Amino acid sequence: MERVPVLKIGDILLVSIQIDMEDQVALQLQEDLADRIVATGCHGVIIDISALDIVDSFVGRTLATIASVSRVLDAETVVVGMRPAVAITLVELGLSLPGIRTALNVELGIELLARSRQDELTELDFDEDEPDAAAVSTS
Amino acid sequence: MERVPVLKIGDILLVSIQIDMEDQVALQLQEDLADRIVATGCHGVIIDISALDIVDSFVGRTLATIASVSRVLDAETVVVGMRPAVAITLVELGLSLPGIRTALNVELGIELLARSRQDELTELDFDEDEPDAAAVSTS
Repeated sequence: MERVPVLKIGDILLVSIQIDMEDQVALQLQEDLADRIVATGCHGVIIDISALDIVDSFVGRTLATIASVSRVLDAETVVVGMRPAVAITLVELGLSLPGIRTALNVELGIELLARSRQDELTELDFDEDEPDAAAVSTS
Repeated sequence: MERVPVLKIGDILLVSIQIDMEDQVALQLQEDLADRIVATGCHGVIIDISALDIVDSFVGRTLATIASVSRVLDAETVVVGMRPAVAITLVELGLSLPGIRTALNVELGIELLARSRQDELTELDFDEDEPDAAAVSTS
């Protein structure tokens, strides 16, 4: 069976979709990706769809599921490389890929992930500081 | 026609081969890759073949041609992700991929490229220093 490889680059998992997303391939990819997120502790997933001529509702749903599964495992997903024609067809089909972040290419996707991770960490720092501040004011 | 996407990540072009390497696909990939090397000025090419069950003599030749073209354009090629079974079959077929560097996965490939680029630059520095050293010794 054909299988979409998941490549690890630093803190990011990269998937380049080039083959037809049949049921089995999509399920296998979801499983592989979830396994790799847990095994590597990566916080970002980039899915490149620049090879796809067509993104139908099934592929759209697959991407959404992958993004949701990743989110539950504390990894953010960015879909990159969408062709202009694909974007137009998607919207004409009434599919706007809700819940999926996009970027023009892999490099911008990596930047987006790094920035959003940074924001998240900053928020965490802020949350942790809160009790201290409260403790100081009551003392 | 199917086309293998070329992804740019920093100073490296990444190609993940997942579809059958027919003549047209292979030629198109060579052309795309050469164009991208020139357009981006990248010095490294990583070709991931972890999705391939079989690497026959045609694929082997294609990889060798890509490596040679890249070298002429001042970019080094590393083939990564070869499955153990593929390596065994290759050698049994009498193909040892001469002139092609390999690494186990994308990350090790990136490291290899960075190191060999560093060595190259150090050599260049050394060559440039030579005349100065000579000038000092004669003064």
